[in-house]
Amino acid sequence: MTKKQIILTGDRPTGPLHLGHYVGSLANRVKLQNDYQQFVMLADVQALTDNYEHPEKVRANVLEVALDYLAVGVDPNKSTIFIQSMIPEIAELTIFFLNFVSVARLRRNPTVKNEIVQKGYGDQVSAGFLMYPVSQAADITIVKGTLVPVGEDQAPMIEQTNELVRAFNRTYKTDVLKEAKALIPKISRLPGIDGKAKMSKSLGNAISLSDSADVVAKKVMKMFTDPDHIRVEDPGKIEGNTVFSYLDIFDENKDEVAELKAHYERGGLGDVKVKRRLIDVLNAFLDPIRERREQLIKDPKAVMDIVLKGTQKTREVSAQTMDEVRKAMHLNY
Amino acid sequence: MTKKQIILTGDRPTGPLHLGHYVGSLANRVKLQNDYQQFVMLADVQALTDNYEHPEKVRANVLEVALDYLAVGVDPNKSTIFIQSMIPEIAELTIFFLNFVSVARLRRNPTVKNEIVQKGYGDQVSAGFLMYPVSQAADITIVKGTLVPVGEDQAPMIEQTNELVRAFNRTYKTDVLKEAKALIPKISRLPGIDGKAKMSKSLGNAISLSDSADVVAKKVMKMFTDPDHIRVEDPGKIEGNTVFSYLDIFDENKDEVAELKAHYERGGLGDVKVKRRLIDVLNAFLDPIRERREQLIKDPKAVMDIVLKGTQKTREVSAQTMDEVRKAMHLNY
Repeated sequence: MTKKQIILTGDRPTGPLHLGHYVGSLANRVKLQNDYQQFVMLADVQALTDNYEHPEKVRANVLEVALDYLAVGVDPNKSTIFIQSMIPEIAELTIFFLNFVSVARLRRNPTVKNEIVQKGYGDQVSAGFLMYPVSQAADITIVKGTLVPVGEDQAPMIEQTNELVRAFNRTYKTDVLKEAKALIPKISRLPGIDGKAKMSKSLGNAISLSDSADVVAKKVMKMFTDPDHIRVEDPGKIEGNTVFSYLDIFDENKDEVAELKAHYERGGLGDVKVKRRLIDVLNAFLDPIRERREQLIKDPKAVMDIVLKGTQKTREVSAQTMDEVRKAMHLNY
Repeated sequence: MTKKQIILTGDRPTGPLHLGHYVGSLANRVKLQNDYQQFVMLADVQALTDNYEHPEKVRANVLEVALDYLAVGVDPNKSTIFIQSMIPEIAELTIFFLNFVSVARLRRNPTVKNEIVQKGYGDQVSAGFLMYPVSQAADITIVKGTLVPVGEDQAPMIEQTNELVRAFNRTYKTDVLKEAKALIPKISRLPGIDGKAKMSKSLGNAISLSDSADVVAKKVMKMFTDPDHIRVEDPGKIEGNTVFSYLDIFDENKDEVAELKAHYERGGLGDVKVKRRLIDVLNAFLDPIRERREQLIKDPKAVMDIVLKGTQKTREVSAQTMDEVRKAMHLNY
């Protein structure tokens, strides 16, 4: 089978990856790399749009996230891991794309709109932040990505990308750039340990892939369950009960989980007992990941070499795309 | 004398250069190149911000403008002529700068504000156009330009540049980027042949440096003079009389010009006679420029080689600056 479809995916390196990332994207990448040509981007430039005052944080997390990738099984022989800031072609294509999008259109992007409110930027939103969807369009198209695994809330990103691709191709009478499709995974979201819809480091409700067994135990013990389940003998609710949400995903023994659920609903099963099971399940899941991570971290230079090799490959692909872009734009001097 | 100060200057290659460019900037560059390290940019990326639908026009004019530079005496041994789109470091630095400027601030730039009205962009102004002052800041700082010859109306460009330089240096605790000063020439503006304040190809009131002697004669004959000076014997006005404005600048015989003015004001001197003089003066001025241009145009590849050599040199300087920028930003992987 030839790998015709090209995937572009990646993360902003602003903190270590957590179980939410695993469920939402990493597990998927480990599968997808077998059937697709997959580029995995360490999006340091994008991370800087809202962390420009803390570049040292972004820098440090490039290595952390690369470690997470390799530890969970992103295979550098199958996937190309690269650093965004080392691909100048992305910046060049972004600048050309900016001519094809109005400021008004950027302001209408629902994802960005929400983030501007959340971050309280208001009228002072930076040009860099407002235009990050244009930069994303360049990330995708520079490697001729045709599939982008995203959550449903990120559909506007694909839409913006394809608008730019169509405008560019139409204006310069070319088919150099490719439209992309969203690849929406079945399970895309793991709740935080506080029961909130989204696990996020900044919300302080995340279990990192690099958390030790002890830390995992402590975090699970604090996990949100059923607030009305006060005494062991009380009947408890499964819906919205974070511990069971996690067991549904991570516990492979579905029959035993079903039994536990029934028992919990009847009453007579305490939270602590269920949590102990989850601790075992999560640590069993995380043990091999942590082990690989510890092996890898002994030689950070080797990890960076993998990333730099992937970056080199991505530069070659990107330079080729930019050559075609320049030709289409009559800028091939 | 060591050339410590670095000049960044240039033009949008959207049409052949004209006498207005000569008076406003080219003459100055020919002088300044002796005392300063001078970079002269063919700003094709900036030209595309409002010509993105016509890249072939921009492309063709890169050669035309390069020919104009060499024909008027910009000396490639003293000045470095380069093509903006071939310096990816400018795009990279622009992207980093965009984090330091709010969209609101960009909208307040008085030059851009005027242009948005003039071009009728309104709410549909493109992101590329709105942020071109940020791109200009990158043009200047990437070569560590400290002097920028500009007209008075372009002071906001220098202000924007220095705001970005200060914010960048402060945030990343560095002095990598240099503030720039405006170098405002004594004579910066030649009126159009229609008497309007500014000569501009798009206003159709320009005399190109490459216009033939015949075309120059025809254009001067149509020149705006004193609309109340109807009969030869009528007294005429000098102020606002374009023919005399041109003579003041291009006619080296100041005494004879003073005499002509007195005669014109008294009455008895016809427009045609003064115009004939101006035709002779302008053609005497343009003859050697046209001659050099004709020589150069015989071998366009040699001209492009000069530009590409300058571009190569600029890339080396820019790569050095970006290395320092990356180091300051902790992005030197």
